[in-house]
Amino acid sequence: MINRGKARAYGNIALIKYWGKRDEKQVLPMNSSLSLTIECFYTETEVIFDNSSNEDYFYLNEELQDKAATNKISVFLDLFRKTSNINMKAIVNSTNFVPTAAGLASSASGFAALAAAANVASGLNLEHRELSMYARQGSGSATRSIYGGFVQWQGGTSEKDSYAIPIDDAKWDIGMVIVIVNSKEKSVSSREGMKHTVDTSPFYKIWPRSAEDDIKEIKLAIENRDFEKLGLITERNGLMMHATMLGANPPLSYWEPDSVLAMQTVRELRNEGVPCYFTMDAGPNVKILCRLSESNKIKRRLKQVFDEEQIIVTGPGPGIAVL
Amino acid sequence: MINRGKARAYGNIALIKYWGKRDEKQVLPMNSSLSLTIECFYTETEVIFDNSSNEDYFYLNEELQDKAATNKISVFLDLFRKTSNINMKAIVNSTNFVPTAAGLASSASGFAALAAAANVASGLNLEHRELSMYARQGSGSATRSIYGGFVQWQGGTSEKDSYAIPIDDAKWDIGMVIVIVNSKEKSVSSREGMKHTVDTSPFYKIWPRSAEDDIKEIKLAIENRDFEKLGLITERNGLMMHATMLGANPPLSYWEPDSVLAMQTVRELRNEGVPCYFTMDAGPNVKILCRLSESNKIKRRLKQVFDEEQIIVTGPGPGIAVL
Repeated sequence: MINRGKARAYGNIALIKYWGKRDEKQVLPMNSSLSLTIECFYTETEVIFDNSSNEDYFYLNEELQDKAATNKISVFLDLFRKTSNINMKAIVNSTNFVPTAAGLASSASGFAALAAAANVASGLNLEHRELSMYARQGSGSATRSIYGGFVQWQGGTSEKDSYAIPIDDAKWDIGMVIVIVNSKEKSVSSREGMKHTVDTSPFYKIWPRSAEDDIKEIKLAIENRDFEKLGLITERNGLMMHATMLGANPPLSYWEPDSVLAMQTVRELRNEGVPCYFTMDAGPNVKILCRLSESNKIKRRLKQVFDEEQIIVTGPGPGIAVL
Repeated sequence: MINRGKARAYGNIALIKYWGKRDEKQVLPMNSSLSLTIECFYTETEVIFDNSSNEDYFYLNEELQDKAATNKISVFLDLFRKTSNINMKAIVNSTNFVPTAAGLASSASGFAALAAAANVASGLNLEHRELSMYARQGSGSATRSIYGGFVQWQGGTSEKDSYAIPIDDAKWDIGMVIVIVNSKEKSVSSREGMKHTVDTSPFYKIWPRSAEDDIKEIKLAIENRDFEKLGLITERNGLMMHATMLGANPPLSYWEPDSVLAMQTVRELRNEGVPCYFTMDAGPNVKILCRLSESNKIKRRLKQVFDEEQIIVTGPGPGIAVL
């Protein structure tokens, strides 16, 4: 019996945002989302089911994690143990490969890599689509990190059809420049932020329908390789998500002064003829969708106002890989 | 016949925003708004109807204005000329008294002072309520500058009942600290911004009802002198207005990096136990509603991150005065 598995998964940046759950337990989203998998950030995870162990151990970057973190992993591994009738505890070794220490962490690559490793270790050998539904239950955005390039997470109608669909490998001069804005304030987690918004923002009721319209439009833009349209929809969808937060009670905003500075720089670059478009998630960092061939030009311009180590250039990333 | 009139009017800051017109020509708003008249900024205007003149002349701060600016004044004075059967052209001398050269200008005090001066010069001698409806046709926000303290502009059901109502003189330890954020970008005018939002933002349809609810709540807070509630409603309503702009297509934002810095400073002050609340209009400046008795403490704190000349402290202002 195979009781050991190791896999790598990449991070992803949503262009059409996942914002709001219709089912907290099953992690079913209010709307479909669409992302670009990126190669600059990935997680490698090994899962070893070991019948000599009395409990689950979770090491992240070689450090043993506390009860709370380990418990999240245990609950997730139970999905695999249940289906494959494995009764063993597990040792999980996970390493995040990040281009800079500051701020850019993601549960997407983490749970996608864990799912892919557990898939091997448990002997389940699920197909990508089904595996994405397992990843989903660890963290919504992990659903999309199963595939590379542009990936849709189909909202679905039940827990059976809420999975990832690969849309396009993004190998047509697509890149991203990420501006790491260090947050001074302790921020509200993405999970809390979306729940607060769903619960209290009168604007939220506009969101799910509007995001579904954006999904249709952006898929058409990808199909036609219409970069300008792709960018405009991305930028608009991100700002609409942030608008729903401003409407929450009390209002919620993840923007820092430097976030606005980065967004202004993007608008200036565009006025100068460089096609690039920003998006922001539940944090102060600004992600700039661009032509990979122009990413260094954009980086040079950002270096006029940001430190070099705050700027990350990346191309599209691949899907999960078994190691 | 009296053919000369001079008056002063003060600026005002909306706590519940005027955002969107239901009738462009009559300047009828989508929703009622409520403001605080402030004493730091005012306009003095003299209107002289002179039958020896062949055209209208408009001097602002002792400089003769161009055709476009003069034409706006002429059209406005026609309202008074028509009602009072005056056939004379006018000479208008207007002076803005601003605490700093940077950025803080307002058509509110301008059209309120012009209306009040024309009211005397034309011999119409309208009551405040009717005069506010004249001022409205010059600039929506001018409606509220007819009165001092807290003033409601009742949205109304027709052009006959869309006027200002004095709510409270605000002489109960109410003040404001204004942070002047210099804009590098040329911004979209308030008039254009609201039209673009009404026309293209799916969030806008939530706004009018929500603002009317805020009006009811804030009037209750004023009646009860509940400063915390007053501030929280103010802050939330302003952010909701900005949320409607983020939802416009293309999106619209007036925020500068320093706007976010000022808003963060307000949140920090509040965490330290100083009750103060921000609001922003269609521009990058941040207006902080506070206790007048704490305004200098707030100014000292803001001086840690802004230049002294960027910070204006003010108390509530009075209504129009005939000079």
